[in-house]
Amino acid sequence: MERNSFDHVWINARLATFDPRVPGACGLLEGHVLAVRGETIAAVFPADSAEMCGYRGGITDCGGKLVTPGFIDCHTHLVWGGSRAAEWEMRLRGVPYTEIAKAGGGILSTVRATRTRSEDELLHAALPRLNALVAEGVTCVEIKSGYGLTLADELKMLRVAKKLRDVAAVEVSATLLAAHAVPPEFAGRADDYVSLIVNEMIPAVAKEQLADAVDVFCESIAFTPAQCDRIFSAAKAHGLAVKGHVEQLTNSHGAELVARYGGWSADHLEFLDDAGVAAMAKAGTVAVLLPGAFYFLREKQKPPVEQLRAAGVAMAIASDLNPGTSPFASLRLAMNMACVLYGFSPAEALAGVTREAAKALGRGGHLGTLEAGKRADFLVWDVQHPAEIVCQLGVTPLVSRVVRGKSSHA
Amino acid sequence: MERNSFDHVWINARLATFDPRVPGACGLLEGHVLAVRGETIAAVFPADSAEMCGYRGGITDCGGKLVTPGFIDCHTHLVWGGSRAAEWEMRLRGVPYTEIAKAGGGILSTVRATRTRSEDELLHAALPRLNALVAEGVTCVEIKSGYGLTLADELKMLRVAKKLRDVAAVEVSATLLAAHAVPPEFAGRADDYVSLIVNEMIPAVAKEQLADAVDVFCESIAFTPAQCDRIFSAAKAHGLAVKGHVEQLTNSHGAELVARYGGWSADHLEFLDDAGVAAMAKAGTVAVLLPGAFYFLREKQKPPVEQLRAAGVAMAIASDLNPGTSPFASLRLAMNMACVLYGFSPAEALAGVTREAAKALGRGGHLGTLEAGKRADFLVWDVQHPAEIVCQLGVTPLVSRVVRGKSSHA
Ligand SMILES: [Zn+2]
Ligand SMILES: [Zn+2]
Repeated sequence: MERNSFDHVWINARLATFDPRVPGACGLLEGHVLAVRGETIAAVFPADSAEMCGYRGGITDCGGKLVTPGFIDCHTHLVWGGSRAAEWEMRLRGVPYTEIAKAGGGILSTVRATRTRSEDELLHAALPRLNALVAEGVTCVEIKSGYGLTLADELKMLRVAKKLRDVAAVEVSATLLAAHAVPPEFAGRADDYVSLIVNEMIPAVAKEQLADAVDVFCESIAFTPAQCDRIFSAAKAHGLAVKGHVEQLTNSHGAELVARYGGWSADHLEFLDDAGVAAMAKAGTVAVLLPGAFYFLREKQKPPVEQLRAAGVAMAIASDLNPGTSPFASLRLAMNMACVLYGFSPAEALAGVTREAAKALGRGGHLGTLEAGKRADFLVWDVQHPAEIVCQLGVTPLVSRVVRGKSSHA
Repeated sequence: MERNSFDHVWINARLATFDPRVPGACGLLEGHVLAVRGETIAAVFPADSAEMCGYRGGITDCGGKLVTPGFIDCHTHLVWGGSRAAEWEMRLRGVPYTEIAKAGGGILSTVRATRTRSEDELLHAALPRLNALVAEGVTCVEIKSGYGLTLADELKMLRVAKKLRDVAAVEVSATLLAAHAVPPEFAGRADDYVSLIVNEMIPAVAKEQLADAVDVFCESIAFTPAQCDRIFSAAKAHGLAVKGHVEQLTNSHGAELVARYGGWSADHLEFLDDAGVAAMAKAGTVAVLLPGAFYFLREKQKPPVEQLRAAGVAMAIASDLNPGTSPFASLRLAMNMACVLYGFSPAEALAGVTREAAKALGRGGHLGTLEAGKRADFLVWDVQHPAEIVCQLGVTPLVSRVVRGKSSHA
């Protein structure tokens, strides 16, 4: 590297690097400089270092403000049609889920609405949700399909996810979640639907490069581990990563299945057992915890956070933004709930939407920390203490947002 | 009333009037017209009524959107200096409150910070919090003092509250909460501090017309019912309304005391007993429930919502926005939590921030419902079902905000 070949430097900042080589839970560096070349962090060095000698490029003085990596929401279903608010009202009145389902509620009600919507209509509905995440500092977001459940409608959802990347200036990791529910036309023939996923959907998605990964809902009320195994096998054969919604309502040993395939993440995990924890630790599979759904469904069983922590499993936090069980377009709310409901420290919550969330999207190599060589996606916050970002809601103390080295005011 | 003497009409709206004479939990009127004269709702009538004959004034076509009364946040402490995020981090690590207090934490840490701030500094810090509430539809907000605890510093806080009314275009109901904590200079001499409140603060606040009401923290760790009785007695003598933070952590029979004085509201109420419910029902004292603090403090004991409902006590919901126990500048979050954590229906949550919250601020006569004669403060929402306003967070489906008859886009 030539000396001073930077395009821009951010000085007088407190860098919450989340670089694991820097001591402390946030990897905090005081009095350091963050230097960017092109779209990349070129160097991080002390303010009094010789690296700045003769530098004539652009300088942003952060005035002692805190800088964090860009936030990554690694589990969302933010493309959907319709609303489930009336269903929620029934649920609050104590109407059992089976009755709600009979009345046309649940995932399949969103499937019906989403199928009738055009790509443009879905984009128009999704954009305010994505913008809400972006306004809080999200620079990379995962978006799942799963409300189409036909080849055409799943591809339609994934195309909307792709378009959102262009209109919102965020990185999008798209995921095929055709195995979200058995569609009505396959009622009682789940294995046939899995064959459709395996034989048509996964090959089409791989061919059109519309998704990075394939997800499943492995649960008593959704797909069996054997069905998920078939899907993962097809995904791997087509070069797609795998991940799973597992152990949310019961323990189906889905996390072990995900780990067996070297999956990026196992998500929810309320009913994860010790064998699941061990399998995830061994495989390096990230635990993605979704306290928004835990809260909204008034669940009682918490994921085994202490066991995951003790086993060294990386823990990410995501919004799970979806119309039925986590209708919250706020990653900061999810972080706050991770602390209040799951006993995360604020620093763990911040790591969970930066370093660990990057790993959960297979992007640990170029996103998630403030280190030389990583993408220059970062956030400048008007706070003294990193915990302030997680503690308060309603007001977002974000001053500016740098994406691929380019700054925009929040 | 002369025919057609309206300044502006809103047509083609679905009116969630919360008028108790209209059937249904939201008092919904389809196909009605909302007519405004000056700052007041002049009439609400069916679209095909003769009232519109010959009308030549301004018309806003709501295109079938939902209209609700302006939201009222009837319990906040939104003026403060400093941050308590580091203290929260300690609390999450399990450090006991007594140790946090010894380390300088708790209400008194905010008192120290607030005392050092000028009016302008406090205004500058409070404005983003108030703006966040306003962006969600708040048109009237209560603001308490209670972080000054000297005559000069309490008056300073109340002057900031007054200024906020002018800069943010909201109605402000200011409350003297000098009895929030015993200040350090009165440690061990709480009765002497109460004498200061009674003999100097209340008369000064009444004279300068800086508050509508006087509040107390009646609790084992704060002030006794006998001390609160002295304060309420002085408040009444000076023509100020009374209200109380009561039964939050223990049952001190504070609600009965508030009711005995015909108080506007008794707030928190987690440990309220049957006698307290009965006293409130008899006195017409509003129950102000604060689920944000319940959530953030990880409390287990819920307020007796079913008993309050059965007794016909009006239930309001508020943010309790404050730095230590409810750092959430979001009334919609509080409404969502009232449903999820306390079992409110979405319609009850909406009534709790409109009709019932108006009563909790002694403003039931001119705010809180869409009725002829009430102030023309209302909100236009891009939703099909009122529950959508409460169900989703992050995205605010507010289209426009009308305050004193004047419209502004959200
Ligand atoms: Zn999900
Ligand atoms: Zn309070």
